Amino acid sequence: MSGETMPEKIGWEVSVAPVGSMAMLSRLEVVKLRDAGHGGLHELFRRCALAVLNSGAHSDDARALYEQFSDFRIEIDQEERGIILRMLHAPALAFVDGELIRGIREHLFAVLRDIVYVSEEIEGRVDVASSASITDAVFQILRNANALHPGEDPDVVVCWGGHSISRAEYDYTKSVGYEAGLRGLQICTGCGPGAMKGPMKGAAVAHAKQRIPAGRYLGFTEPGIIAAEPPNPIVNELVIMPDIEKRLEAFVRAGDGIVVFPGGVGTAEEILYLLGLLLEPANASQPFPVVFTGPASAGDYFRQIDAFIRATLGDAAAARYQIILDDPAEVARVMRAGLDEVKHHRRTTGDAYFFNWTLTVPHEFQMPFEPTHESMAALDLGRDQPAHELAANLRRAFSGIVAGNVKDQGRRAIEREGPFEMRGDPVVMKLMDELLKSFVAQHRMRLPGVEYSPCYRLVA
Amino acid sequence: MSGETMPEKIGWEVSVAPVGSMAMLSRLEVVKLRDAGHGGLHELFRRCALAVLNSGAHSDDARALYEQFSDFRIEIDQEERGIILRMLHAPALAFVDGELIRGIREHLFAVLRDIVYVSEEIEGRVDVASSASITDAVFQILRNANALHPGEDPDVVVCWGGHSISRAEYDYTKSVGYEAGLRGLQICTGCGPGAMKGPMKGAAVAHAKQRIPAGRYLGFTEPGIIAAEPPNPIVNELVIMPDIEKRLEAFVRAGDGIVVFPGGVGTAEEILYLLGLLLEPANASQPFPVVFTGPASAGDYFRQIDAFIRATLGDAAAARYQIILDDPAEVARVMRAGLDEVKHHRRTTGDAYFFNWTLTVPHEFQMPFEPTHESMAALDLGRDQPAHELAANLRRAFSGIVAGNVKDQGRRAIEREGPFEMRGDPVVMKLMDELLKSFVAQHRMRLPGVEYSPCYRLVA
Amino acid sequence: MSGETMPEKIGWEVSVAPVGSMAMLSRLEVVKLRDAGHGGLHELFRRCALAVLNSGAHSDDARALYEQFSDFRIEIDQEERGIILRMLHAPALAFVDGELIRGIREHLFAVLRDIVYVSEEIEGRVDVASSASITDAVFQILRNANALHPGEDPDVVVCWGGHSISRAEYDYTKSVGYEAGLRGLQICTGCGPGAMKGPMKGAAVAHAKQRIPAGRYLGFTEPGIIAAEPPNPIVNELVIMPDIEKRLEAFVRAGDGIVVFPGGVGTAEEILYLLGLLLEPANASQPFPVVFTGPASAGDYFRQIDAFIRATLGDAAAARYQIILDDPAEVARVMRAGLDEVKHHRRTTGDAYFFNWTLTVPHEFQMPFEPTHESMAALDLGRDQPAHELAANLRRAFSGIVAGNVKDQGRRAIEREGPFEMRGDPVVMKLMDELLKSFVAQHRMRLPGVEYSPCYRLVA
Amino acid sequence: MSGETMPEKIGWEVSVAPVGSMAMLSRLEVVKLRDAGHGGLHELFRRCALAVLNSGAHSDDARALYEQFSDFRIEIDQEERGIILRMLHAPALAFVDGELIRGIREHLFAVLRDIVYVSEEIEGRVDVASSASITDAVFQILRNANALHPGEDPDVVVCWGGHSISRAEYDYTKSVGYEAGLRGLQICTGCGPGAMKGPMKGAAVAHAKQRIPAGRYLGFTEPGIIAAEPPNPIVNELVIMPDIEKRLEAFVRAGDGIVVFPGGVGTAEEILYLLGLLLEPANASQPFPVVFTGPASAGDYFRQIDAFIRATLGDAAAARYQIILDDPAEVARVMRAGLDEVKHHRRTTGDAYFFNWTLTVPHEFQMPFEPTHESMAALDLGRDQPAHELAANLRRAFSGIVAGNVKDQGRRAIEREGPFEMRGDPVVMKLMDELLKSFVAQHRMRLPGVEYSPCYRLVA
Repeated sequence: MSGETMPEKIGWEVSVAPVGSMAMLSRLEVVKLRDAGHGGLHELFRRCALAVLNSGAHSDDARALYEQFSDFRIEIDQEERGIILRMLHAPALAFVDGELIRGIREHLFAVLRDIVYVSEEIEGRVDVASSASITDAVFQILRNANALHPGEDPDVVVCWGGHSISRAEYDYTKSVGYEAGLRGLQICTGCGPGAMKGPMKGAAVAHAKQRIPAGRYLGFTEPGIIAAEPPNPIVNELVIMPDIEKRLEAFVRAGDGIVVFPGGVGTAEEILYLLGLLLEPANASQPFPVVFTGPASAGDYFRQIDAFIRATLGDAAAARYQIILDDPAEVARVMRAGLDEVKHHRRTTGDAYFFNWTLTVPHEFQMPFEPTHESMAALDLGRDQPAHELAANLRRAFSGIVAGNVKDQGRRAIEREGPFEMRGDPVVMKLMDELLKSFVAQHRMRLPGVEYSPCYRLVA
Repeated sequence: MSGETMPEKIGWEVSVAPVGSMAMLSRLEVVKLRDAGHGGLHELFRRCALAVLNSGAHSDDARALYEQFSDFRIEIDQEERGIILRMLHAPALAFVDGELIRGIREHLFAVLRDIVYVSEEIEGRVDVASSASITDAVFQILRNANALHPGEDPDVVVCWGGHSISRAEYDYTKSVGYEAGLRGLQICTGCGPGAMKGPMKGAAVAHAKQRIPAGRYLGFTEPGIIAAEPPNPIVNELVIMPDIEKRLEAFVRAGDGIVVFPGGVGTAEEILYLLGLLLEPANASQPFPVVFTGPASAGDYFRQIDAFIRATLGDAAAARYQIILDDPAEVARVMRAGLDEVKHHRRTTGDAYFFNWTLTVPHEFQMPFEPTHESMAALDLGRDQPAHELAANLRRAFSGIVAGNVKDQGRRAIEREGPFEMRGDPVVMKLMDELLKSFVAQHRMRLPGVEYSPCYRLVA
Repeated sequence: MSGETMPEKIGWEVSVAPVGSMAMLSRLEVVKLRDAGHGGLHELFRRCALAVLNSGAHSDDARALYEQFSDFRIEIDQEERGIILRMLHAPALAFVDGELIRGIREHLFAVLRDIVYVSEEIEGRVDVASSASITDAVFQILRNANALHPGEDPDVVVCWGGHSISRAEYDYTKSVGYEAGLRGLQICTGCGPGAMKGPMKGAAVAHAKQRIPAGRYLGFTEPGIIAAEPPNPIVNELVIMPDIEKRLEAFVRAGDGIVVFPGGVGTAEEILYLLGLLLEPANASQPFPVVFTGPASAGDYFRQIDAFIRATLGDAAAARYQIILDDPAEVARVMRAGLDEVKHHRRTTGDAYFFNWTLTVPHEFQMPFEPTHESMAALDLGRDQPAHELAANLRRAFSGIVAGNVKDQGRRAIEREGPFEMRGDPVVMKLMDELLKSFVAQHRMRLPGVEYSPCYRLVA
Repeated sequence: MSGETMPEKIGWEVSVAPVGSMAMLSRLEVVKLRDAGHGGLHELFRRCALAVLNSGAHSDDARALYEQFSDFRIEIDQEERGIILRMLHAPALAFVDGELIRGIREHLFAVLRDIVYVSEEIEGRVDVASSASITDAVFQILRNANALHPGEDPDVVVCWGGHSISRAEYDYTKSVGYEAGLRGLQICTGCGPGAMKGPMKGAAVAHAKQRIPAGRYLGFTEPGIIAAEPPNPIVNELVIMPDIEKRLEAFVRAGDGIVVFPGGVGTAEEILYLLGLLLEPANASQPFPVVFTGPASAGDYFRQIDAFIRATLGDAAAARYQIILDDPAEVARVMRAGLDEVKHHRRTTGDAYFFNWTLTVPHEFQMPFEPTHESMAALDLGRDQPAHELAANLRRAFSGIVAGNVKDQGRRAIEREGPFEMRGDPVVMKLMDELLKSFVAQHRMRLPGVEYSPCYRLVA
């Protein structure tokens, strides 16, 4: 169905030795992971493991991956040093001369750790009606994954942007990562290729030059997106959050500032989530540095985004970010200065450097949105609602399009029932239509080589 | 009420800076820790914290401690680097020139970590009717406390013995620890002075000589005993298990071999627990090195213990341990050799080096025993039951005497209602009476300087 | 005189804080370093420091650098934590937002360390008539610089090649470094841009993916070449050898295998040195993996080099290397296999993994060659001498051309007296002429943008 | 000849694996170490190695040791990981179940490192007529041994005192070490048992409690004393200085304050050296904390020392130290406060925290004193000289008595020619006689069990 080349698979069985404390499971945890039945975790684990092993493949089609590797097997055994994994028909890409790349090995065990933890400790304990309880869960998952570092100043820069970007844009993301790394900043992304990988590569070189041995490359993903955007092995703190909304909350609470590169609907979803939060009156005094940036060639792109935001959410939303073109060092300097403010604010308010507790994330931003033909059609996309509520709904709309584009379940729904229909205010519909069309035209919807057929239909 | 000298208290408020990841609590966890009401954790935390701070005091009287420091206050605040503790009227002993000893600082945060974890993650999730579920909880508490090290061979020697022992016996425990440390062994004890401290001091010096920077000094305690036997600051892996039975299970699953020094009723409780397990038919093939040892002067003591075991549990029980007098190097060599067998067995059976999953701990050994006048009177101490069941009941009998001797609740019950009465087979009663009388005569019941009045009465 | 852009200089004075043990100098050492007179080390230190600070500049013209920064000042002071450096008019490139890049800071202190050590400990103690004594000095300088790691297997791959190479060639060197890094190999180069930097960048990313925190990026330079080829800040083990010949000996004794990328006369010098050694009969049984490699486009280049070697040194020389085009993974696999042989050989012969003592470096390869019009004219370039002697002389010829191209002293001599003249066997002269002309045509002599006028004249 | 028990020797050959960078020797260095002839280092190395292996033996008789182990053999080989040592007939004490204690293994390689370094780098380069050059050598030996730590504040407390002390005194030295360790201080001694070992043991336990993983236990010795006072394996920075005077200079330049416990003539030598320096007018403004301390029972001892100092060197000398009896915590507090002053002084004067450059050590204190019957007889012990010169001569007198008591060469001279004769001012002679007699009476001259026959005769 596409020009993407699928990775080869290995024919032999491999054993994957345990990695430190991530490989200590209890007997009951092992039973649950092995359980392929309803309520068991085996299929979830198998799919995430496959996605992790597929790192580096030039494909963003989760469904094709699962089909291609339908015979992939993974088994869990207890040995003297911890849990050992046995795999058959794994993607060959993950191996160098028959040996699994160690970064990928760690990712496999990170998947194990997070799936078990969420299943054991979080599900059933979270009170979904309580915003505080959901935030508590986000914190606990991150803490359990050692992704919160109490000894450090606020220095985590979240980089958002497309997985399908041009070479010039990719090189630009590397430069920004490099300049950020030179200034001691750490990089957090949503995993995957493109704008999620470039900043980490750049920062890794800069950290080497600055002799920062503990460079952090955080990757926050979730089971629905991991196959389309597998973590780069540079990621040394991988966390699999249970759903999109907790992943987004992880970004804004564990990250201290955000850089947005050119991207597609996923990036638009993230921007709307972020602006929705920052428009929330309770967050008015939160310092939160946000920069939209790209090479000079991305000027039009950002002007269009900016126009869309101003037209839908108003100028107050636009006051929350800064657009910088073609100046990686300036981006890094602005972030550095912004983080100094964040640090000052956290110390003054007694908030933790490692987790932004004082940020308000309204309950409507926390509730998982399940994109179906019904839920998409029911979204209120009118302008006669407070800006942060419109932001929340627009976020859901884009989230649904991401699902229809690259997620397994979403793609099946579209195949079965045709594109999602969304209705709303004609002005908003028109703006959205233009934005989406430009994403299509700029090949930001899917990786190049895949012809894009829209998974949505806008009705004014 | 005793000749014990109570420690001075400091008059000023001190702030205790956070210690690494132990100091990262969620907002809801802080709320629970601050909650002084029913269901809240504050009083439990306050008492354990006080016990930890009292380290080094020459007292084993929990009740006196709590009364002496009834005005001790501890508060929990969130700051930028994590949780900060503020204390008033803390024991002066814990400080050097006004600064809290760092080992004790770590212990405070270990208390915090374990109390929160047990409350949040374990209680309510454990199925008390399921032996596997209880074992799972023991594992999870230890894993959460970083007390399981997947990278290491089985090398943890548990040392049991009295907190109130003679100088010669104490020096002997140091020598055994020294010889064990020279052979690369790690030390785990129940915390507290005497035989729980000596082996660690000896091992610390030996580890220095052998350039073992990661020497492990594990201390497993529980809220009921911590005040009478506060952890020595050398302990660098302190775990507060929720009750006696989980603490005992932690010893036999995370420990790989056991050395028993002279002790009193607590030690007798531990011996009976251990032999009860090892007599369990399912454990027949478990290699588990056990050595009873002391200086030459302890010869009579061990002969008496040995006789008691043979008379109550039979020679099969006595086959499970070896008595070595006055030869610390030989004790270490026997342990070293025993651990090699353990390692071989774990590898062969695919069991973890860091947690003995294949040991069977019968459910009756896992169920908490609450010593009251009723439950003590109801114990079946007759010889007409299988040896491991008699062991379990004798274990409970001694456990009750420990409570009556040094625990806060037990001492109150005795004061209120007089000594516990126990009934049983005249032969067993006679043996027990002799054993207990000898403990009294040898000052093994309480620290010297305290006149002992028995908390029990044996009825044949 | 060229289109190269010289870096800006900073106007302010900066203090450079000491770096660990490299910053501990004795009072007498400080006196020597401050001494700007004859016999003092100040000017040597100033020049090397300037070169190090110039890292990243697009210029290979040492002389221009020294002229541009004639007002650069560096002073040495003792402070409580060690030696502090104060600089004025330093190149701005070395700073990020006013702070010196930490890798460059380390390089400054490496320069300090090596200049002092060579002056104090080596000069005057070395018996220049003794090959063993010279080798001893090479060893001692490397040991003092912590560039010998006794705990590691032979895993240091030396990468040689041009500083002025095409983008395709540069990307190729990165790929080879990446594939080598994935296989756990470490990278050693002569410092500088191009083929000396690419493999390190590639390896740094691969080491991150393979979680190799102690990735080694060794740079061996000498005072004459450092200004033209300043070390990249990724280099984390910089050693300033006292002269070309000791630098070359360091490569072949501390390196375990060699990859040669396309390059110019410097690379030719290195190839001839290496082949001269390997043709030495005493080294017949030395396993020493050597691969010449480049992208497909470099095919002609290597065919020409190969032809030159076969025509001058014979097919036996050509048997010592393997040419691999356009296959970075294969290069890494061949090196990996070669190093396994090296390891086996060292263990069998009891030679150190960290220093190849059993390699014979004949005295004529150790004696410094001072290129002057006289010494260049006197070189015997005839074929009527043993191959390894011809190799030694050809090596000197290319060494002289390097000096005339980019070294300060060499360029002054050429300006003063015109090109070096070399005479020899017409066949050799013709081959050499063709080779050099092709270097010129391919812009391998100097960085692009500089028009090249030859510093030599060949007379048949 | 004595009641001392000599250690057993092992019958088998053992190989000692290399220890890190200490085991990297050049081929020429190996040749020198193997050279048993005149100018070779083999016998020196063999003797020091034997002394190190003898650690823990209850003997201070170097000569007896050498005789007992006259068949001890040690050989040096190059292997792939560095230098390997092969030994035959080594003292059994150094082994645990056939394996060399790792601390002793490190000491063997420290001996190797220092002997080679002094021979290669120092001898021949030092200008013995220049005080600065001698100081330079002291610095370089310490730097090469990694015994100078630039990252740390002045925190090295030198502990002097007897190797032959009572149990109460020994326990007291442990307590002082413990209190010092609790306050983050590091311990430096002259190696050996008694007052050289106790403070380290105490500090090791305190460092464990304070979680100071990088506790430093420096031992400075020299080839003449090492056999009588072998380093305790706790010592983790052992340096073999070439002679007594450089060892003393190392103490006062690398140490930041000094605690003196009861001792014998060796301790008296050290006290006189120290006071001689501090009386030197150039050192008038040097802050240098000095405490004489012991248990209450040592009160008479210190009163006598104090009287001797006041009578010979004057009250100005006595103003330089403080006597504290029976209060370990106070000793530690006084040191801590004194070191804060030292830190302030170093920062103000720009002197290094790790080496006291600004202290003046007059040339007469640096020149080695060779005690012979002639040189001892020639000492000017009259009071008609400046105090610091009398101190220098008294220092030499006591140094000679140490040699006659326990050093190999000294003991041979005494056996051959009878006791050393010393002449001087009757008052000084009388004071000295009383002091020495009290040392004899208190068994401070030699270890208990050895009957002491004086090696000196005082003539008024």
